[in-house]
Amino acid sequence: MRLVEFADRRFRLAGREVLGRVRHFMGSFDALSDGADGRLVSFGAYDYLGLSADERVRQASADAALHVGVGVSASRMIGGERNFHADLEANLAAFVGTEASLCLVSGYLTNLSLVQHLLGSRDLLVIDELSHNSIVSGASASRARTITFRHNDLDHLEEILATQRSAHARCLIVVEGLYSMDGDIPDLPRLIAMKHAHDCWLMVDEAHSIGVLGETGRGISEHWGTDPREIDLIVGTLSKAFVSCGGFVAGEARVLEWLHFTLPGFVFSVGMAPPIAAAADTALRILREEPWRIARLRSLSAHFVAEAERLGLDCGPSRGHGVVPLFFRDNEETVICAEALLSQGFYCPPIVQVGVPRDQPRLRFFLSASHTEANVSAALEVVAAACNSERNLDRLAS
Amino acid sequence: MRLVEFADRRFRLAGREVLGRVRHFMGSFDALSDGADGRLVSFGAYDYLGLSADERVRQASADAALHVGVGVSASRMIGGERNFHADLEANLAAFVGTEASLCLVSGYLTNLSLVQHLLGSRDLLVIDELSHNSIVSGASASRARTITFRHNDLDHLEEILATQRSAHARCLIVVEGLYSMDGDIPDLPRLIAMKHAHDCWLMVDEAHSIGVLGETGRGISEHWGTDPREIDLIVGTLSKAFVSCGGFVAGEARVLEWLHFTLPGFVFSVGMAPPIAAAADTALRILREEPWRIARLRSLSAHFVAEAERLGLDCGPSRGHGVVPLFFRDNEETVICAEALLSQGFYCPPIVQVGVPRDQPRLRFFLSASHTEANVSAALEVVAAACNSERNLDRLAS
Ligand SMILES: Cc1ncc(COP(=O)(O)O)c(C=O)c1O
Ligand SMILES: Cc1ncc(COP(=O)(O)O)c(C=O)c1O
Repeated sequence: MRLVEFADRRFRLAGREVLGRVRHFMGSFDALSDGADGRLVSFGAYDYLGLSADERVRQASADAALHVGVGVSASRMIGGERNFHADLEANLAAFVGTEASLCLVSGYLTNLSLVQHLLGSRDLLVIDELSHNSIVSGASASRARTITFRHNDLDHLEEILATQRSAHARCLIVVEGLYSMDGDIPDLPRLIAMKHAHDCWLMVDEAHSIGVLGETGRGISEHWGTDPREIDLIVGTLSKAFVSCGGFVAGEARVLEWLHFTLPGFVFSVGMAPPIAAAADTALRILREEPWRIARLRSLSAHFVAEAERLGLDCGPSRGHGVVPLFFRDNEETVICAEALLSQGFYCPPIVQVGVPRDQPRLRFFLSASHTEANVSAALEVVAAACNSERNLDRLAS
Repeated sequence: MRLVEFADRRFRLAGREVLGRVRHFMGSFDALSDGADGRLVSFGAYDYLGLSADERVRQASADAALHVGVGVSASRMIGGERNFHADLEANLAAFVGTEASLCLVSGYLTNLSLVQHLLGSRDLLVIDELSHNSIVSGASASRARTITFRHNDLDHLEEILATQRSAHARCLIVVEGLYSMDGDIPDLPRLIAMKHAHDCWLMVDEAHSIGVLGETGRGISEHWGTDPREIDLIVGTLSKAFVSCGGFVAGEARVLEWLHFTLPGFVFSVGMAPPIAAAADTALRILREEPWRIARLRSLSAHFVAEAERLGLDCGPSRGHGVVPLFFRDNEETVICAEALLSQGFYCPPIVQVGVPRDQPRLRFFLSASHTEANVSAALEVVAAACNSERNLDRLAS
């Protein structure tokens, strides 16, 4: 079969029709913004601390491009290493509270390569059923046996460990610091106790929790008041609170040294580009110096949840930490609400078919320190109104 | 076992001692350059066309950072799409001669995610035994059966297809346009004939061939005079001739559309950053406008091979296309020659243990339009001298 026929067939199976309906949300944001006279307020950007338009971040990136260069033209193992790499890694490690860290050019690749690399065929990998695709791909790439536990259900995890752990050599548990599709947080103290009880390694993907959770944005360990060194591998991305691109893994120095020399997605890949590293490093500095941003995100998130509940909207398990989903009855209703928002100058793409269970379509709101309470209230009023008129129509029709 | 003990043990197995010996080559290039009073000429950078220090590339990157921003703060599927993404993809497709292309933030990830995504458990994947690690990782991540053929040995590939193809549903052959460790090129016309004869798909990783092979740098198809549309999937990276960071896949529009909506490493990852895309797009424009760079690289490469042969050095299968390895008897000799080069102001890291067969250590020279004939001659003289004195010592000792 020709590749193009295969692709056509697969695309139909992947739900081309549904995706077709939400296609304009996937179009260029530049074009969408033009349509709204450039006044689109986005709830689709994980710019939690409002740094994506920050002049200091942009200037640092531009300066690096001009004075250091863009690409480093080699793997860091053989000529691509620069002083700024070690600086950024030391700053990230100090911030999250570990001895060392290592940066890769992609957050997705960091998870995928790590999970693929860590375990062998005699090992056990236990992951949340709603894990980010980068973890799921890593699991399917790994030779280890993979078992998923029900979303954020640590009783289920405990049961799996109790019955399955002993039949395997090593065991890695992977969770996320803040689940970005549901907005909920795992019970870290309990996970740490379980990891000790069952002799497991614990990896936490803090893509959405760093810069968001904890008084000073240090993530899930600060949120729960636990020692970050209790987590064997903290993974993060530079594309979210750090408004850049890339990923990192943090932990003990000797573990990181081994990864430095052996992690395939690091060793066999170009070193991080100067304008990317400079932007992330600057965002990290601002994050440390301006903790009001984290407080602001927190109060806005609380405002969102309170307003949504007042309006009878369904936030699911989220308690309001930077990202809050609104659940709807079906794809239809979800798309209607997203359309209504867009027509009023708010961008919040419908999440249907891809990345979430197909029967749980939603609008996912990323909040940002750059939003106002008025933005949030107005957007939620639009959703509530669209939902109500849709449900009224339904009642009339039935 | 604690992760740190596991890491220590694995690091020993991975050859910590050997790696320790070449460690300073892996240190920061900034520091190495300082040691050489900043006058280090690097043969370790795959900056084939001499654009990494180009002011136009740097300025375009800086402008994008300042005026467009650094991160796009979303997957391109849901808010991260910008006009410049489509522009760059159209330009890349036009350059390589396909209908469409798609960019990911990492070249390594592009290969890994594509190979993992394309095939199922009833399929066959046939790859070169010296494939880049991103392809090997993709193969091990894929559910398909994987068979490797002897390096660049198409007779062996033919034999595998003749005996194994029919037992599988789909079959993907993956080769590279220019093997970066050996500097050799596969026979594309024969591969195309084989792909048709055996109903296979052909994927070619042009990481090192774009900007290098063919009169105008369009890669392996131009080199052989074949139609690029005969290759089902052309993969490339933006970190080499394009002196930036990221990867792309190019092919028929309908195939690319399917990948746009389903390729996990694209869908579930942040969109490419403006300063990165702008640099690559600018490098691509320069590449089109200044073909003398490709000619210059070609003549320098020819000079390298001629000089090396004159000096009795072993270039292996390379015929001199941008990257040329020199093979040595053992790790010891390889490291001695690399040290001698460094002491004379030339950086060329020894490739031992990682990325090549352990019994084939080498120095790999990336040539660049920014090198001079004098650089090349001087470096080769240093290697020949170091080698000869080492072999003389050996003779005396024996
Ligand atoms: C939980 C989680 N992990 C990892 C990633 C990958 O990060 P990046 O997009 O920076 O590659 C994402 C991004 O979507 C994510 O949400
Ligand atoms: C043949 C080949 N393919 C893919 C890659 C990955 O590209 P990148 O380093 O840009 O991720 C490389 C880079 O080392 C390579 O040599």
